[in-house]
Amino acid sequence: MTIPAPLTGVVPPVCTPLTPDREVDVASLHRLLDHLTAAGVHGLFVLGSTSEAAFLTDRQRELVVAETVRHAGGRLPVLAGAIDMTTPRVLERVAAVAAAGADAVVVTAPFYARTHPAEIARHFRLVAGASPVPVLAYDIPSAVHSRLPAGLVLDLAAEGVLAGLKDSSGDLGSFREVVTGARTRPDITGFSVLTGSELFVDAAFALGADGAVPGLANVDPHGYVRLDRLCRTGDHPRARTEQERLCALFGMVHVGDPARMGPSSSAIGAFKAALHLRGVIACPATAEPQVPLSAAEVERVGKFLAAAGLLQSRSTGTRRNPRVS
Amino acid sequence: MTIPAPLTGVVPPVCTPLTPDREVDVASLHRLLDHLTAAGVHGLFVLGSTSEAAFLTDRQRELVVAETVRHAGGRLPVLAGAIDMTTPRVLERVAAVAAAGADAVVVTAPFYARTHPAEIARHFRLVAGASPVPVLAYDIPSAVHSRLPAGLVLDLAAEGVLAGLKDSSGDLGSFREVVTGARTRPDITGFSVLTGSELFVDAAFALGADGAVPGLANVDPHGYVRLDRLCRTGDHPRARTEQERLCALFGMVHVGDPARMGPSSSAIGAFKAALHLRGVIACPATAEPQVPLSAAEVERVGKFLAAAGLLQSRSTGTRRNPRVS
Amino acid sequence: MTIPAPLTGVVPPVCTPLTPDREVDVASLHRLLDHLTAAGVHGLFVLGSTSEAAFLTDRQRELVVAETVRHAGGRLPVLAGAIDMTTPRVLERVAAVAAAGADAVVVTAPFYARTHPAEIARHFRLVAGASPVPVLAYDIPSAVHSRLPAGLVLDLAAEGVLAGLKDSSGDLGSFREVVTGARTRPDITGFSVLTGSELFVDAAFALGADGAVPGLANVDPHGYVRLDRLCRTGDHPRARTEQERLCALFGMVHVGDPARMGPSSSAIGAFKAALHLRGVIACPATAEPQVPLSAAEVERVGKFLAAAGLLQSRSTGTRRNPRVS
Amino acid sequence: MTIPAPLTGVVPPVCTPLTPDREVDVASLHRLLDHLTAAGVHGLFVLGSTSEAAFLTDRQRELVVAETVRHAGGRLPVLAGAIDMTTPRVLERVAAVAAAGADAVVVTAPFYARTHPAEIARHFRLVAGASPVPVLAYDIPSAVHSRLPAGLVLDLAAEGVLAGLKDSSGDLGSFREVVTGARTRPDITGFSVLTGSELFVDAAFALGADGAVPGLANVDPHGYVRLDRLCRTGDHPRARTEQERLCALFGMVHVGDPARMGPSSSAIGAFKAALHLRGVIACPATAEPQVPLSAAEVERVGKFLAAAGLLQSRSTGTRRNPRVS
Repeated sequence: MTIPAPLTGVVPPVCTPLTPDREVDVASLHRLLDHLTAAGVHGLFVLGSTSEAAFLTDRQRELVVAETVRHAGGRLPVLAGAIDMTTPRVLERVAAVAAAGADAVVVTAPFYARTHPAEIARHFRLVAGASPVPVLAYDIPSAVHSRLPAGLVLDLAAEGVLAGLKDSSGDLGSFREVVTGARTRPDITGFSVLTGSELFVDAAFALGADGAVPGLANVDPHGYVRLDRLCRTGDHPRARTEQERLCALFGMVHVGDPARMGPSSSAIGAFKAALHLRGVIACPATAEPQVPLSAAEVERVGKFLAAAGLLQSRSTGTRRNPRVS
Repeated sequence: MTIPAPLTGVVPPVCTPLTPDREVDVASLHRLLDHLTAAGVHGLFVLGSTSEAAFLTDRQRELVVAETVRHAGGRLPVLAGAIDMTTPRVLERVAAVAAAGADAVVVTAPFYARTHPAEIARHFRLVAGASPVPVLAYDIPSAVHSRLPAGLVLDLAAEGVLAGLKDSSGDLGSFREVVTGARTRPDITGFSVLTGSELFVDAAFALGADGAVPGLANVDPHGYVRLDRLCRTGDHPRARTEQERLCALFGMVHVGDPARMGPSSSAIGAFKAALHLRGVIACPATAEPQVPLSAAEVERVGKFLAAAGLLQSRSTGTRRNPRVS
Repeated sequence: MTIPAPLTGVVPPVCTPLTPDREVDVASLHRLLDHLTAAGVHGLFVLGSTSEAAFLTDRQRELVVAETVRHAGGRLPVLAGAIDMTTPRVLERVAAVAAAGADAVVVTAPFYARTHPAEIARHFRLVAGASPVPVLAYDIPSAVHSRLPAGLVLDLAAEGVLAGLKDSSGDLGSFREVVTGARTRPDITGFSVLTGSELFVDAAFALGADGAVPGLANVDPHGYVRLDRLCRTGDHPRARTEQERLCALFGMVHVGDPARMGPSSSAIGAFKAALHLRGVIACPATAEPQVPLSAAEVERVGKFLAAAGLLQSRSTGTRRNPRVS
Repeated sequence: MTIPAPLTGVVPPVCTPLTPDREVDVASLHRLLDHLTAAGVHGLFVLGSTSEAAFLTDRQRELVVAETVRHAGGRLPVLAGAIDMTTPRVLERVAAVAAAGADAVVVTAPFYARTHPAEIARHFRLVAGASPVPVLAYDIPSAVHSRLPAGLVLDLAAEGVLAGLKDSSGDLGSFREVVTGARTRPDITGFSVLTGSELFVDAAFALGADGAVPGLANVDPHGYVRLDRLCRTGDHPRARTEQERLCALFGMVHVGDPARMGPSSSAIGAFKAALHLRGVIACPATAEPQVPLSAAEVERVGKFLAAAGLLQSRSTGTRRNPRVS
């Protein structure tokens, strides 16, 4: 399907459920897609950072896209990350995920090699020139160690190179510059400006963002869909209350002991533990070399769910999913 | 062949010659391998950063390894980088380059995802557990944005996980800790400690390093082989003079205008321009999205070669290679 | 006077006007204070980063505080930065600015020496223990190269160590955690949470911030006072329009050529050029070793002012201040 | 006295002994100076990072310089740090330490404010223009978060702005560029190139460095003086053995628990604990907000001393200093 221009609303970066031996768990992926779709999300973004794209082989990535596209059945647009180091490798990933049915691709600046803004621009131009589907830029400095300057994003939008931006920089000032520029520049139309934040989606919508791509929407899609609706109807007090509930829930990403694991093991481990506790996925395993949460850490995830009203009875939840590890 | 334990001497990180349309130029690769071998280097390292591994597709990478192994014909050990983001992807790259004939693989810490030292250790254990050939660690914080602590490297050496270290951190203090530890710890034998520096190979040898992997050895392999020999015979004054000549030559990596390109475009562009001017490779192209050197910048590369005594007559040199761009 | 708990509204970080030979220009400082007061600001923050505190000698700093306190005459609370490297030096600065009449002090984490969160906590406890006036924490990672974790700020608030936070981190998620914690934790009362952003003051107010400390409020205090009022009355559409006008005006901070100067020379140079063009201060000089804006760059500042409706006629403006350099 | 041009040999960055209530312990400072002088060091550097300059008030700093100059009595040149944020503040510090008798000042790039290389050059020109004594540049990116490019240092040397460089960057390649440039450029004479490393002084001397400023020379000045002599006589094998002994001793800087303190608390705490255990200083206290070493951590410092042959009998050592905490 053609992605809307702009794409609006809640577009969860879909977790990739794994089996205990780290293969894609297709049945759990289907359940997760149903869980998101039933909540009313507006699109699906697979193979982003929350999807552990960096940890999946090319074969696994293509399986995820194909299964998601097939399961979505044209009801929702499917965006797919094409995460790789440089232009020639990204071009291969773009071709592969487009062939697997993705409606748009999401591409970062080059990484591993240090790149100049001129090289980043060249990268996006080459990728967009060869991509059969629209290209969104993915600004994620924590992973790629460079920023996409707002002016560059807007110029590439005006050129027709970029169809949108997924901003995971945390920098609302620069994000706003893109939002305002996309709205006011006469040479830009239909450009999708999406925030990757979990914590200030209300603010992003208030200043004009088109959509949100919050990892936590895997755990509580209903919350973010509600938040989106409250923002669109201008019900600021209730939007803020909903956002604050989600901020509290997001605290789960810190359950992992920083003496034992990195932030990815903790955050993605928490999301998957929550999906497991909620009965959505069969196994909370994260990909190697991430470190699994301990039983006590998983229990703390359960408490976050309970506090947010997402777990009727924790004992029931864990009984339903005996494979919690 | 089995790589020596430890591997000693000069092991150039072999540039990957490309055609004007960015395919691997196998004939030029063969000439480059001959150029290095004739100079007396002690091993070959393909698919490192200087090889533009981050810019090559998997198919191109495997071609480079297979051609290098075939051309080396068992006369020199061939190490191959297995550069990818995380364990599952690195495992695939390790299998592929080993199948293509590499005698050892060189593996970085995970990147893109932020990792904890415990996760880095887990990564190397899993990779080594599955690798059919010895694994060397590649410490390159400028690319992966984390360091390999000396203590971790030594512990993994003692466990038999790591067979060596290629250190491109620039941190001689930490490098020395590995060198001294590898020599003095009774639980470590045959561990190869290799510096990635161009600028203080003499110092690294003086403190006990086994070998060097300088990118500039593509351009002047005779110089580094001479330097290695002078260091081994304890001729410190002449070693220092040779090293200083090579330091001056290394200045070529800065020819590229920093307002127009990043450090990789400039450095690898300079190495390839030099190889082209010296008549070794047919085309100086670097991979996308790197920016090519201008004619004036290439001319400055020629001046560095001339000053180092590596270009009898620049006009002859350029006449031999009419495709300089 | 006692500062309000919490302090609310617009609290400009007051620029420090200098003479051409880099002494404090007291007459211009008075005019600037009048300009701010007449616009209806709610407090004054001297000796912050926008005040070039890092560039002022201790004698100059004390003069700025004393003159500001005297000129404010108790009509507005005066906060003063006590910017120095470590606890013993900050303690001296706190004593000095309190003696000069400051109603509260604003203190960063230690810098130059690398510090652990436990050392940062110890620092604030020691400073607050010895300060005769309330202490606000200043989170400015671009200057001090460490962050103040939200949890630490809240714990020090609950302990009575900190009376408030001035957040210049740009990280709205963490800022929100402090805002929400200060509102909901029963052990915290009267804590002032102030954003240092120019670009999303509307968002900060919407999520519950008490006040804003935008450097650009030197140039356009009326705009920020208006924005504050629109936010408090819940007039979101007009607040957003006002904020967007201020965002456009803020573009002036980039007028300086990045090949010739750093971000401080450009941003503070632009604020001072604007104040000079508006006839508020007599000389736009910034402190050494900052580089002055060129005439063409100053002219671009004038265009930003004109576009924001802040300069009736640029020629009149420059005629009134013949010392523009 | 006039400092030698170039200054050669071992120039310890002198620790600042403190009393339990964090005043300068002048008697201990005298004993430390005697300890260093008796070992044969070639100069004294006070108010550097190892001296906790960032933690001392201006009054304390001037006391340290005056006491050191008086106690040295012209037998050794005294260099003094003038560590402050920007030009106007550094100018005051330079005047103060020169008035207190320092023979040369050591000055970093500006910090806190982010600075451009052009602003750094301007800073050094202004400082040198006003300094009554020679100015050495202090390259310490871990503290000031910018680098001094080798080319800039050499140009300022040729201009007569800089009399030397104290390099604490850890980057031996860039250090070598300064060493070689200072030796070979005809427009530079008498420039002192000093390494701040503890771990590769032998390598620095081998490539032509004039001197070394190792913090560990407080603990074992005899070792570094011996190392200097062995390097100058070309006795490479024994120089390396001595350097390796010192590298092992340097391991003490890591005794502090990183969960409880930062690197400065650990390293300076270890040096002071060692000086206390060796009976040189009366109290091992470090300045606030640094965290003291635990008794167990101090015990580990003692083991490092014993292993290096610097503590005949640890029980005797501790008996002599009953105030170990």
